[in-house]
Amino acid sequence: MGSTDSTPGRIRKAPEGILSPQQAGQAHRARRGFMAKALAMGAGAAAAGAARAADGDPAILNLPAHTKSLGQPVAARGYGQPSAWEKNLQRRESPGLTRVSAASVSFTPLQGLFGIVTPNGLHFERHHQGWFDIDPSGHRLMVMGMVREPRVFTMDDLMRLPAVSRIHFIECGANTGMEWGNVAVPTVQYSHGMLACGEFTGVRLSTLLDMVGADTKNGRYVLAEGADGSSMTRTISMESALDDVMVAWAMNGEMLRPENGYPLRLVVPGVQGVSWVKYLRRIEVGDQPFHTKEEVLHYVDLMPDGTHRQFTSVQEVKSVITTPSGGQVLLDRGYYNVTGLAWSGRGRIERVDVSFDGGRNWRGARLEGPVLSKALTRFNVDWVWDGGPAILQSRAIDETGHVQPRIDQLRAVRGTRSIYHNNAIQSWRVSETGEVFNVQVF
Amino acid sequence: MGSTDSTPGRIRKAPEGILSPQQAGQAHRARRGFMAKALAMGAGAAAAGAARAADGDPAILNLPAHTKSLGQPVAARGYGQPSAWEKNLQRRESPGLTRVSAASVSFTPLQGLFGIVTPNGLHFERHHQGWFDIDPSGHRLMVMGMVREPRVFTMDDLMRLPAVSRIHFIECGANTGMEWGNVAVPTVQYSHGMLACGEFTGVRLSTLLDMVGADTKNGRYVLAEGADGSSMTRTISMESALDDVMVAWAMNGEMLRPENGYPLRLVVPGVQGVSWVKYLRRIEVGDQPFHTKEEVLHYVDLMPDGTHRQFTSVQEVKSVITTPSGGQVLLDRGYYNVTGLAWSGRGRIERVDVSFDGGRNWRGARLEGPVLSKALTRFNVDWVWDGGPAILQSRAIDETGHVQPRIDQLRAVRGTRSIYHNNAIQSWRVSETGEVFNVQVF
Repeated sequence: MGSTDSTPGRIRKAPEGILSPQQAGQAHRARRGFMAKALAMGAGAAAAGAARAADGDPAILNLPAHTKSLGQPVAARGYGQPSAWEKNLQRRESPGLTRVSAASVSFTPLQGLFGIVTPNGLHFERHHQGWFDIDPSGHRLMVMGMVREPRVFTMDDLMRLPAVSRIHFIECGANTGMEWGNVAVPTVQYSHGMLACGEFTGVRLSTLLDMVGADTKNGRYVLAEGADGSSMTRTISMESALDDVMVAWAMNGEMLRPENGYPLRLVVPGVQGVSWVKYLRRIEVGDQPFHTKEEVLHYVDLMPDGTHRQFTSVQEVKSVITTPSGGQVLLDRGYYNVTGLAWSGRGRIERVDVSFDGGRNWRGARLEGPVLSKALTRFNVDWVWDGGPAILQSRAIDETGHVQPRIDQLRAVRGTRSIYHNNAIQSWRVSETGEVFNVQVF
Repeated sequence: MGSTDSTPGRIRKAPEGILSPQQAGQAHRARRGFMAKALAMGAGAAAAGAARAADGDPAILNLPAHTKSLGQPVAARGYGQPSAWEKNLQRRESPGLTRVSAASVSFTPLQGLFGIVTPNGLHFERHHQGWFDIDPSGHRLMVMGMVREPRVFTMDDLMRLPAVSRIHFIECGANTGMEWGNVAVPTVQYSHGMLACGEFTGVRLSTLLDMVGADTKNGRYVLAEGADGSSMTRTISMESALDDVMVAWAMNGEMLRPENGYPLRLVVPGVQGVSWVKYLRRIEVGDQPFHTKEEVLHYVDLMPDGTHRQFTSVQEVKSVITTPSGGQVLLDRGYYNVTGLAWSGRGRIERVDVSFDGGRNWRGARLEGPVLSKALTRFNVDWVWDGGPAILQSRAIDETGHVQPRIDQLRAVRGTRSIYHNNAIQSWRVSETGEVFNVQVF
């Protein structure tokens, strides 16, 4: 689909017929008997009509190189890379979003992804001071504050401790933030692409707090601090710290990528990405919130009355259709597998409904397993496009009963000037030409 | 652990103290007051004793570059890459295993991986004619044979059909094959590294068979054929084809890698890798097994009486400890998180037991969730190494009650001259020097 196209996100239709026009041309020139024989042994001639070249002649055709030559050796490229045909599927920066690209965002290309695992090479980035590739042998984590015995851990100290592996989504609190002001950015990469999901491996933060003898009764908060110079610091409640928070070194089977905090980051399941402090170097136990820059000046919700809501960290139930989505083009009428993602910071996804008429009628989607707590859930639903205009929406409901709201419902409470925590239903309009647009429907 | 070391698989201990010797030396030369102040604001000075430099002076230290400079911008490298510090963690070919590297194997570095997801860049390779990066717009899949209406599908034809996503392991039938003859290859990468696990997305083969009106009563078998010139062809039972077999285009969220069959491969959950035909171009329905080269000459089990067992495709219950494992070195006594992988082609893993004394005593390991059918399961277990010799083993039991056998039990039935389908318990001997060796224990 989008991913095999030179224009990311567009639903391209492949050329008809068994061979490309170029191959057919070569065949027309060559007409050698052994080729016809070779082809008859393989795919092609047996399928009625399909094996005829564009000029109507019988199929006497060149075989592609990969059927008659020796390919590349194993381990040819060291660490493996995607197909050259997929080179346009990349995370991309939204130009002008910030003053410098070292303190900016690059977005996950959701329109070309499948399932729930986000490849590490396409995981969105949000840096406050750029990224670094830190020597893990020099990296340390200090755990201190209201503890009996402060400790400094090397990476090896940490990695021999009891490990856990968990699949969780991570979403920036500002994801879909442009939609508050009705900007309607064109594609799902830019509207929802500060989102990823992976399998994280690390040690429970509770294990470390136990090792240092943390005062978990009076020490009701934990500060997490990163090693880069952006002073990235966030307060986590002790309740959360003792529940499912992890100090992680691995994502999707391998060590974290430098852009995602190598060699160590906090994983705070269900909570906005800014709290998943990268390059984690310090944990401090305290008896009150730390009121750091990134929880006072930023990542606060501007309300209609001019006040700011603070510490609204949980990412509420949300979903989005990724195909078809903005910027893609349906080139045919007929059947489509409509697919998307749903997630909730409060637990498992219970169901996802999809509408093709702007929210008047809803139909339940198929959820792909495993449906995990605080993880992305992939949904699929059948659709036959009749060629007429349509408005596609998805609406997720989580296991706690929370229902994803309409944008007008959200605006009635939260206004239009916020940046953060927009979990509204997304609408994609399909025009009669098959083009798909980001629209807001009330 | 192993992954952050220059020698893959070795358990390296990081240098003690808060800074590297190089940083401490710089600090000794510089002794500038603002550095001490800056350090006191961050991690270091508060942890008792840890912030003293090697010469015993108070900590007056250089800060690392990442705390005082602007880092790399977002999307700096296009498709993201691992840390430079991890460059030695790669799939590797076993030299001399085959005559040409285009028809060889490269092994997954299990000793440095975490959780159950195998990164696509580290997924093992097994090619019979090398790998190709095939243009997806020219690729076709023909479904034919005992069907009402044969069809040729483009990639776009397939990718608009109802999709499913499933997490499954893939293991080469020859994995651990060298152990039959007691070769005891040194590391888990070479002993068990023809193994991977990922989330596959595609269309059910049953959907395609339904579309072409396959005769599923008389057509009891299906042939799968790849597009490369190795004539890779395998017979699948119709029962399996109608159950959970997929025609997949994606692995771990993105399109398949060229080395793994881009743009299309068969996924046959629980069955040996050779049946997961890459570059899939043809499906044929027939009324008997096709007896192709790769199921008559190869991938057959040589028995003690000189006969060959054929069509033994299911990968039976198996497990292996990945850390500590062969070639690694324990540098300290004390606590270790012992970790490994378990899997079964027959369903879910029920439990994993671990022994530290060569099989006399066994202890249950913690299974990380989700525990999925025909997928890798990560296990962890506590161990305190007292500095004495030890023999580590893991034994998996699946939900059908199958128990992973000892190598002597397996040899009693299967002899020692087979190549395929060795699912025996693996033994790692830890010497008093902390070195870990591949041994066979009876």
